Amino acid sequence: MATLENPSVEEAAEFIKAAVSEHKAIILVGNCWVNYKGRASSKLEPGERIVMIKDDGSVLVHRPSGYEPVNWQPAGCMFQTRVKEGILHVRAVRRKPSESVNISFDCVFLVSAMRLIDRGEFSLHASESDMQRAILVDPTLLEEGFKPIAYEKKVEPGFVDVYGVDREGRLVVVELKRRTAGKDAAMQLEKYIDFLKTVTNRELRGILVAPRLAKGVQTILTSLGLEFKALEPKRCAEVLHRSESRKLEDFF
Amino acid sequence: MATLENPSVEEAAEFIKAAVSEHKAIILVGNCWVNYKGRASSKLEPGERIVMIKDDGSVLVHRPSGYEPVNWQPAGCMFQTRVKEGILHVRAVRRKPSESVNISFDCVFLVSAMRLIDRGEFSLHASESDMQRAILVDPTLLEEGFKPIAYEKKVEPGFVDVYGVDREGRLVVVELKRRTAGKDAAMQLEKYIDFLKTVTNRELRGILVAPRLAKGVQTILTSLGLEFKALEPKRCAEVLHRSESRKLEDFF
Repeated sequence: MATLENPSVEEAAEFIKAAVSEHKAIILVGNCWVNYKGRASSKLEPGERIVMIKDDGSVLVHRPSGYEPVNWQPAGCMFQTRVKEGILHVRAVRRKPSESVNISFDCVFLVSAMRLIDRGEFSLHASESDMQRAILVDPTLLEEGFKPIAYEKKVEPGFVDVYGVDREGRLVVVELKRRTAGKDAAMQLEKYIDFLKTVTNRELRGILVAPRLAKGVQTILTSLGLEFKALEPKRCAEVLHRSESRKLEDFF
Repeated sequence: MATLENPSVEEAAEFIKAAVSEHKAIILVGNCWVNYKGRASSKLEPGERIVMIKDDGSVLVHRPSGYEPVNWQPAGCMFQTRVKEGILHVRAVRRKPSESVNISFDCVFLVSAMRLIDRGEFSLHASESDMQRAILVDPTLLEEGFKPIAYEKKVEPGFVDVYGVDREGRLVVVELKRRTAGKDAAMQLEKYIDFLKTVTNRELRGILVAPRLAKGVQTILTSLGLEFKALEPKRCAEVLHRSESRKLEDFF
C-alpha cells in the first residue's frame, strides 16, 4: 500500500501508471471533470470527487454525496494515463462495446494504490415476509399492471400472502415461497381459490411465486388452472433495500 | 484533508469520530467483516476492502473487484464508532425504516477524511437509436412479455423503430421519440399501422414511446386506437450501460 498526498499531476500520473500495470486498486481524490462516450454519452462538469479504479479494471466516480456513483465502468477497462498542459487525463477504455470514460484532473489531493485480498463470502437473506413487502413496494415484481389491494388477507383456509387486481380487473391471489415450491404450496393456493369462488363471481387468478418449482409441480399448477411466477428472494431484498423509507401502511 | 497510514484501531476510531462529527467524507481501507440487518439481512465474511462514508451519511463497502458495492446504505445514516477487544466497529444506523450496517475491522491500512466541494452538473444523453437498442436489450422497458422480432423494419411509409409480438400474440409497432411526442409522431405511427393492416390479418397494436406527450396528443392516440408508453431516454441509457457487451445482432 502506497499513498501520495497533494502530488503534482505529473507525480500522480507516474504513480497511477505503475499501479495500473501492477493491477492494484487505486483511490484518487481531486478536482476533476468526466466525459463518457459509448452506449449513450454523458458529461460531468468540474468538482471534487473520489475516483476508484479496481484491480479488475472497473472504475467508479463518486461525488461527496449520494450512494450511487455518478460515472462508472464495469470490469475489463484498459487505462491510458497522461499529462497534457498541466491536466492529468485518466482514460478508461472498453472495446466490446466500444466506450470510454475520460477523467481529467487539474488538482490531485490524494492518490493511493493497494493490493487487497478478499475471499470473504457474501450471503443475503430475504424471508417470505420480505418478499411480500417487496411486491407491495414494486408490484411489477409480480407483473406489469398488478395492483395489490391487501396483504395477509384472511380467507377461510388461512391467510393469503398478497391479494390484488391485474390489469384486466381479475382478482389475483398470490402464494409466496422463498425456496423451491412443492406440491403443498400449489394445493394451499388452490384451497384459497376454491374458497374465494364461493364468495365472489369475479374472475380469479392464482399465482404461485417462488424462485423455482419442484419437479412435477408445473403439471399440477397447469391442471388446476394456476400460474407460476419465478422470483428470487435476493431480487426482493434488493428492491426493499433500494426502496425509499415508506411504511407498508402507505400503500393502502 | 487528513490521512493516517496503518493507524491502530484506537487511532482510527478517534479519527473517524472526529470526521463524522464534522460531516467529512471518509475513506477507510482495511480487513473487515460486515453484517446488515433491516429490510432483509446479509453477512459478509472477512476480507480486505475499501469503505466510503460520504458527507450525507451514505455508506459503501467495496471489494477489490466488481463495480458494485457489496454493502451500502443510502444517505441519512447515524454513525457509532467504538473499539472493543481490539476490533474497530463502525455502525451505520437508519431509523425509518430501522436498519443497520455493522462494519468491523481488525486491521486498518488507511483512513482519510476530507471536505469535498462538488457543484458540477451531470448530463446524460441518449438518442432514439439508443432507446431502440435499450428496448431490444430489455424488452420489459416496453412491457412485460414483449418479444421484439425486428428493428428498423421497412414498411411502406418508412422504417418502424421496433416491431414485435406482445404476450397475447398481437403484432406491436413501436414509434420512438426522445423528447415530448407531438401530433406528428402519432400520425406517423398511424401510417405504419394503416399500411400493416393491408398486409396482415393479425391483430395490431401501435405504441408511441416517449418521455411524455404534448398537450392533446393523448386524445388523438385514443381516437386512433393507439397507445402511449412513457419512457425516459435516461432510463434507456442506464439499461444500455448496465447491459452486457452483446451485439444487437445477438437478439435476432
